[in-house]
Amino acid sequence: MPELRSLSPNRLDRDDPLVGFRSRFVVDDPGLCYLDGNSLGRLPAETVARIQTVVNEEWGRGLVRSWPAAWVELPERIGGKIARLIGADAGEVIVADSTTVNLFKLAVAGLRAQPGRTRIITDALNFPSDLYALQAAARLCGPDYEVEILDSVDGISVPAEALAAAIDERTALVELSHVAFKSGHLYDMAAISAAAHAQGALVLWDLCHSVGVLPIDLRAAGADLAIGCTYKYLNGGPGSPAFLFVRETLQDRIENPINGWFGDAQPFEFALDHRPAKGIRSLLTGTPPVLSLAAIEPGVDLVLEAGIERIREKSMRQTRYLIERFDVELVPLGFELRSPREAEWRGSHVSLGHAEGLRIARALIDRMGVIPDFRAPDNIRLGVAPLYTSYEELERAVQALRVVVRDGLYADYSATLAGVT
Amino acid sequence: MPELRSLSPNRLDRDDPLVGFRSRFVVDDPGLCYLDGNSLGRLPAETVARIQTVVNEEWGRGLVRSWPAAWVELPERIGGKIARLIGADAGEVIVADSTTVNLFKLAVAGLRAQPGRTRIITDALNFPSDLYALQAAARLCGPDYEVEILDSVDGISVPAEALAAAIDERTALVELSHVAFKSGHLYDMAAISAAAHAQGALVLWDLCHSVGVLPIDLRAAGADLAIGCTYKYLNGGPGSPAFLFVRETLQDRIENPINGWFGDAQPFEFALDHRPAKGIRSLLTGTPPVLSLAAIEPGVDLVLEAGIERIREKSMRQTRYLIERFDVELVPLGFELRSPREAEWRGSHVSLGHAEGLRIARALIDRMGVIPDFRAPDNIRLGVAPLYTSYEELERAVQALRVVVRDGLYADYSATLAGVT
Repeated sequence: MPELRSLSPNRLDRDDPLVGFRSRFVVDDPGLCYLDGNSLGRLPAETVARIQTVVNEEWGRGLVRSWPAAWVELPERIGGKIARLIGADAGEVIVADSTTVNLFKLAVAGLRAQPGRTRIITDALNFPSDLYALQAAARLCGPDYEVEILDSVDGISVPAEALAAAIDERTALVELSHVAFKSGHLYDMAAISAAAHAQGALVLWDLCHSVGVLPIDLRAAGADLAIGCTYKYLNGGPGSPAFLFVRETLQDRIENPINGWFGDAQPFEFALDHRPAKGIRSLLTGTPPVLSLAAIEPGVDLVLEAGIERIREKSMRQTRYLIERFDVELVPLGFELRSPREAEWRGSHVSLGHAEGLRIARALIDRMGVIPDFRAPDNIRLGVAPLYTSYEELERAVQALRVVVRDGLYADYSATLAGVT
Repeated sequence: MPELRSLSPNRLDRDDPLVGFRSRFVVDDPGLCYLDGNSLGRLPAETVARIQTVVNEEWGRGLVRSWPAAWVELPERIGGKIARLIGADAGEVIVADSTTVNLFKLAVAGLRAQPGRTRIITDALNFPSDLYALQAAARLCGPDYEVEILDSVDGISVPAEALAAAIDERTALVELSHVAFKSGHLYDMAAISAAAHAQGALVLWDLCHSVGVLPIDLRAAGADLAIGCTYKYLNGGPGSPAFLFVRETLQDRIENPINGWFGDAQPFEFALDHRPAKGIRSLLTGTPPVLSLAAIEPGVDLVLEAGIERIREKSMRQTRYLIERFDVELVPLGFELRSPREAEWRGSHVSLGHAEGLRIARALIDRMGVIPDFRAPDNIRLGVAPLYTSYEELERAVQALRVVVRDGLYADYSATLAGVT
């Protein structure tokens, strides 16, 4: 494979088959270099119109009549579209609540579906909110329940063999982030799911950092349960509701632990006892936040239109470009690669470690118009969102990192975490 | 008190001190008579501008920088404003999740704060989603836990003595809707809280049908816990996030059972173990849906500006007007009053029972431009939202009910529940 760094970023942008998608987003500050789509995706232009319709037409004019006419089916309709991105059937995915609440629901349900098994296996690369929810679920299920957090050797990945070795007949559930939030390590979903199943454990995948940016095939992997957010590579907007997946053949064993009227078979009969709706709808609880929910759909449509294979191809190429440029420009300045070097083991962001990481990130944002994010203790994450990230942005970020460190431009910034997001 | 029905609706509107607030809402279909603000409040004009700012400026332009700059404080800031409406301190209220998820959280936390006590007392007037969440919470806490649902004598209210008699040393928690969703019965919060406390039980109030439309004084009532929605009389928009209240002096005993990063003391340290934030923020779980969250504030501001005492005064007057007109016009047509006749025991909606209730409600919406809602088996609810409901609308609704029944205009409509909201 020829080295990408021998090509100019402008040339790479010109040859990018997805280059036209950038104009489908609101990008009205050309001076800004946004490499944090792995945290909050950009605003799709179509979403602006959609939200106006929801607010002015559906809420303002339609009022309560819009519930049956437009809103009640949103969780399933959008869930059905996300299903196409993750190798699931429409009846296996629904949009509801936050990622963490969904994880809690599926963790409790998964534990209760596995009587006699009391352990959850996860790892230290997992997003901490997942760990907190798993610990909360275990605590609620009883004093015998526990969460084992496997450590990584290098901060980047946990070897598949170490994971497999930790799973035994006490394991109810294996829960992992498909792509690790800090290092960007991509787990082999099929292999780990098989290792879990070999011991009778269920596997629950957090797809937050992979959905919308790389092909996922839950069906082929035999995955049991999954959750994921919609505000990163799906561009659903800040805090947009999350989704959850329950394999169809497992649905009769997975009972929602937080019952509410939206998961009831006949909510408008107002019966005093809950009768769960059929299928995936039984995992709903309360009334969904419609503005944030409806805002998800245009972003998902863009991903479907572009095609997840093409998105993955560009993503791999762009993270490779970053790593090639890092090797030349940033290694001499004290940066370390904290992401897998092999593209097939990498999600869509590249983490660079530096002893002054937090202050460098602040200087980048404040002085250079480059937005990465920072993950304690010392990681700068550069996120690639192939629908709108250009090679020219990547090159500018590399140059900005170089200049900020070379010239000590971070010296005036605080090294405490206050205000970090 | 002179009979209101002797005055013309136009005269009553002219004399209404709150009449000017109607123009603060988007009301662009003067032919529509909207009496379902008790289900979904109207769209405040200011909210249209606010959502545009959040979408275009904060998301589109500010991107991830808007989390520290504008979004992270929304749950507490809006919670602090709601606190002023319910007799609470700012540090006692926060906006999070859905009503049902919040109820689940506080029910589990309340049960765990009361070791040795295994019963929840509630009643059959409660909103069924509350009952489902309570039953789910009890189930998760163990096989000894149970929910006792007290029946009402007349479908309208449960006598305070019957409630008090049911509370004993086994009772961990009493959970009731402050205003019953069907009948509109208003509980005496102070008396019931005192009865619960006399037996060592905690009391958890559902304020969905009272917040924003009548004065609530949780502090004076000695209430322990509360939840409520923001999309009815607070006009926060469809499915806007709910709020929860924990009495300050109880906060060290109430532990969030669904831990997540938004409730962590230092979420950006990414520690593997959860350390709860101080105070009410510890009740947060995942990332909140910002568009739906930010949309709440203008509606709350309108209620604060109008003043809850003036709102209550108009609400009582308007429900009284409805009942007086019902007595004259609707009793002869087979309608029955299903709400308390005494204003001090009534929330802000009036329920009318009729054997053909569902078909009548459908005819009202479809043929008369009058929107009430229907609550099985046979209740038509007429909701009064004093910030925008006019007497002229109330009179039109009464006339529409009269004509639909007198002329049998409901005959073509279905009596099955499909499509009801």
